[in-house]
Amino acid sequence: MQVYGAIEAGGTKFVCAIAPSPGDPFIERVSFPTTTPSETIEQAVSFFRKYSLKGLGVASFGPLDLDTASPTYGYITATPKLSWVNTDLLGPLRKAFNVPMILDTDVNGAALGEMRYGAAQDVPSVVYFTVGTGIGGGTVVNGRTLHGLVHPEMGYIPLKRHESDHYQGNCPYHGDCLEGMACGPAIQARWGPASNALPADHPAWELEAYYLAQAVTTVVYTLSPHRVILGGGVMHQAQLFPLIRQKTLELLHNYITNPTTPEAMEKFIVPPGLGDDAGIRGALELAHMAVD
Amino acid sequence: MQVYGAIEAGGTKFVCAIAPSPGDPFIERVSFPTTTPSETIEQAVSFFRKYSLKGLGVASFGPLDLDTASPTYGYITATPKLSWVNTDLLGPLRKAFNVPMILDTDVNGAALGEMRYGAAQDVPSVVYFTVGTGIGGGTVVNGRTLHGLVHPEMGYIPLKRHESDHYQGNCPYHGDCLEGMACGPAIQARWGPASNALPADHPAWELEAYYLAQAVTTVVYTLSPHRVILGGGVMHQAQLFPLIRQKTLELLHNYITNPTTPEAMEKFIVPPGLGDDAGIRGALELAHMAVD
Repeated sequence: MQVYGAIEAGGTKFVCAIAPSPGDPFIERVSFPTTTPSETIEQAVSFFRKYSLKGLGVASFGPLDLDTASPTYGYITATPKLSWVNTDLLGPLRKAFNVPMILDTDVNGAALGEMRYGAAQDVPSVVYFTVGTGIGGGTVVNGRTLHGLVHPEMGYIPLKRHESDHYQGNCPYHGDCLEGMACGPAIQARWGPASNALPADHPAWELEAYYLAQAVTTVVYTLSPHRVILGGGVMHQAQLFPLIRQKTLELLHNYITNPTTPEAMEKFIVPPGLGDDAGIRGALELAHMAVD
Repeated sequence: MQVYGAIEAGGTKFVCAIAPSPGDPFIERVSFPTTTPSETIEQAVSFFRKYSLKGLGVASFGPLDLDTASPTYGYITATPKLSWVNTDLLGPLRKAFNVPMILDTDVNGAALGEMRYGAAQDVPSVVYFTVGTGIGGGTVVNGRTLHGLVHPEMGYIPLKRHESDHYQGNCPYHGDCLEGMACGPAIQARWGPASNALPADHPAWELEAYYLAQAVTTVVYTLSPHRVILGGGVMHQAQLFPLIRQKTLELLHNYITNPTTPEAMEKFIVPPGLGDDAGIRGALELAHMAVD
């Protein structure tokens, strides 16, 4: 039987899976730590060698070179994960498997997965943010993941500091950008390593919601998506959702016509429908699109 | 002869034009001040009655209701121009002319005009900002202007204050958003009514470039367009372009792979190719798309 293959390539771990079609239960799914490029990619190749692949979808951490006309197409480029800087990710996979492949960012993959099988099935566009060790965002518009000169890198959008917040930000590239102010390690740096155990009414979450609401507001003003999905480890703090919805309403200030009510906001900012499977499910969908 | 009709509906003036096809010289073009909704729309209707219309494109100030399923489709909604709040713009035009029509935002229209006939003909996506009395931004992705739950409203993106800048911002909705800090009246409020005559090396332009570079950076991180066009009255200050390019390079900090050089930035941030005709040309293109 020919199957679709999918890789969710993360900075911490790689997930590989295969399924008869992108919405089906996985036939097999494995995950292993991200070590050196050659070792990790070889481990993925070994996994897929057991199957007869129809196509392969890869949703990877980045930034990526997605310009098919570029000599470094399919490379991971200026990533903060230094051993992976300028790594040819797609090349070794193409050498091993002569099947149609599509590479996209991990967050574009997750947005696509959520749109086809998750919390955005009923709308034509979506933005997906992951908030964890880092922050990233991807988007699907008119059925396609969005690329341009490069691809969205929503973790680095500039934002306004809260006047009470004197934390300098921990992004090595941009200091106090969205990621620098609101990723998991930034919360820990402000409130201590046990921040996951802070009570739900701790001011840490108000501040976190303030920054994430700015991120949502920014995509409302630039992309005007039909829905915004917030996933990743930090968003396991469910008390963040009502806080972010409330602050987004305040920031939008009724200027746009929708969403302007708490009810509309409840449907607008939501957790992932696929939980931690959004990325790998999106990668399967990329495999399906490659074959089509 | 049947012709295409176009309206560029601005808060200060309406421009109406007709042409045999969207790229042709105008057969006639008029402009008149924006007064009351009924008077102004009636004036547009009178203009087009002289011709046999094939289709009509309308690029309007907003915000607009562009949801064809909505009871207020075609309305101008929460605009700061109070006499136009909740004005049915498309309805009277549809009543007068039984031809295909498309309504879009003025800045989406300008982005479309620039992509088809102006400074973005060689690329597949573009963001167009107008910086004048207000600030707005529109975008074309994959050949289509971008809409979602509503439409982009790029003038209101949150941004980081310059530490030396204590101006409170003049946006009635959001205070110190992009428009509040960087529109023409904000420059005048800081530096005096003769700000247009300030020398090219005055610190006013450094500060203005700082905010506009944040706007460019934000769309790079969210939309990743192939080109950013900066038009509008404030951008007649040509010394702003090199300043904005330089500050955008600094803000991006080499994180994304392109643009990272002054040469690439020179092609990336550009003035409009159509000057002040981008909007009306885009509206003609909307008329053409409506007929197609």
